[in-house]
Amino acid sequence: MSSHIEDRDVPQHRDVAVLVPAAGQGLRLGGGVPKALRELAGQPLLVHACARLAQAPSVALIVVAAPADQVDAVRELLPDATVVPGGATRQQSVANALAAVPAGIDIVLVHDAARALTPPELVESVAAAVRAGHDAVIPVLPVVDTVKRVDATGAVLETVDRAALRVVQTPQGFRRGVLAKAHAEAASEHTDDAGMVERLGLPVYCVPGSDHALKITRPLDLAIAAALLSL
Amino acid sequence: MSSHIEDRDVPQHRDVAVLVPAAGQGLRLGGGVPKALRELAGQPLLVHACARLAQAPSVALIVVAAPADQVDAVRELLPDATVVPGGATRQQSVANALAAVPAGIDIVLVHDAARALTPPELVESVAAAVRAGHDAVIPVLPVVDTVKRVDATGAVLETVDRAALRVVQTPQGFRRGVLAKAHAEAASEHTDDAGMVERLGLPVYCVPGSDHALKITRPLDLAIAAALLSL
Repeated sequence: MSSHIEDRDVPQHRDVAVLVPAAGQGLRLGGGVPKALRELAGQPLLVHACARLAQAPSVALIVVAAPADQVDAVRELLPDATVVPGGATRQQSVANALAAVPAGIDIVLVHDAARALTPPELVESVAAAVRAGHDAVIPVLPVVDTVKRVDATGAVLETVDRAALRVVQTPQGFRRGVLAKAHAEAASEHTDDAGMVERLGLPVYCVPGSDHALKITRPLDLAIAAALLSL
Repeated sequence: MSSHIEDRDVPQHRDVAVLVPAAGQGLRLGGGVPKALRELAGQPLLVHACARLAQAPSVALIVVAAPADQVDAVRELLPDATVVPGGATRQQSVANALAAVPAGIDIVLVHDAARALTPPELVESVAAAVRAGHDAVIPVLPVVDTVKRVDATGAVLETVDRAALRVVQTPQGFRRGVLAKAHAEAASEHTDDAGMVERLGLPVYCVPGSDHALKITRPLDLAIAAALLSL
């Protein structure tokens, strides 16, 4: 095994920052059901998520926006990440995290800590698409089940053509200026960063997502995640 | 524990037949990857599925359409089910199975054996909605992830309003005559029975589905299903 393997898929330097807005109500360390700190195999989801981000060869920096009163505790959990106080809204938290990214880094990903098992390969794939010239990149999966559109009474209006539908995962990747502009110009609170870019009229590009990047929120998801971990 | 508990949720008699079309290419007993006979916790998916159907208090009869050359083998697996030879298409298999349902039964469900962990409660819920007067009933789940519509190049066209979208599961339930008419008038092969009813211009009603009714098709799904079984 040579340590001089030339791998053209790996960038020559780490040129990516990943923002993890985790200041929401889910992240009360002392609360009843702390989302991002819910444990999976003995570790908080946030720790699982950041460990996988850190394994991606392109990632220079991980910036976590924590609840203002939990910054020190989150720093202890994640000694290798930059931890900043989050804001009152997710958007403010993303802005705070973005402000902590040094000027030289032009590729910025935004990740959801609840997608704790997102493989490093997916992080690389999103980053590579931004590096290749796409201003905004999202990982997506096809819709496998039949989808209906319904009215408020529970009656079916139509079967939706699912061939053109994709479910969106994270990390979402952006040319830094595009993300900054999208957040600066967003009128209301959004959880979908790529949607904010769409509203600017800018193109958003899709790359294949991963079944392992599922969002872990319900107890059932924790059981599924544990199964994935044991594969 | 009295055996005389009066449960108003349980029908006074078994008035439901469930059809399980399992004659497709997936069900070659000797083949490489027999879908419906792929094993989960030591039992074929088809056996898991039928065991749960049989636990639903309303179910009078389960009719499995098996590959013509596998009818005896499937009968051995499922001694309590009616096993009929399937046809060349899924539609023909449903028709063959429907023909085996006695005249007195007016509520007919169609189930996918790959949804092997569908709980009996969901079967009851679908049957109850048909009994209550809905001609066609589907179990559905809300769409939890952001959904985009994309073009052929992988560029995002728009963010879809997912509030009105539902993903469809099985069993789907029908007034017998409605299912027969939908299948008789369908011009081409369909895998979505409710969609055939929609094309007749008849209403389709939704009831809440179940996370346990997931479709088990990929190796990853088998791992998830095993995790669900262990809950």
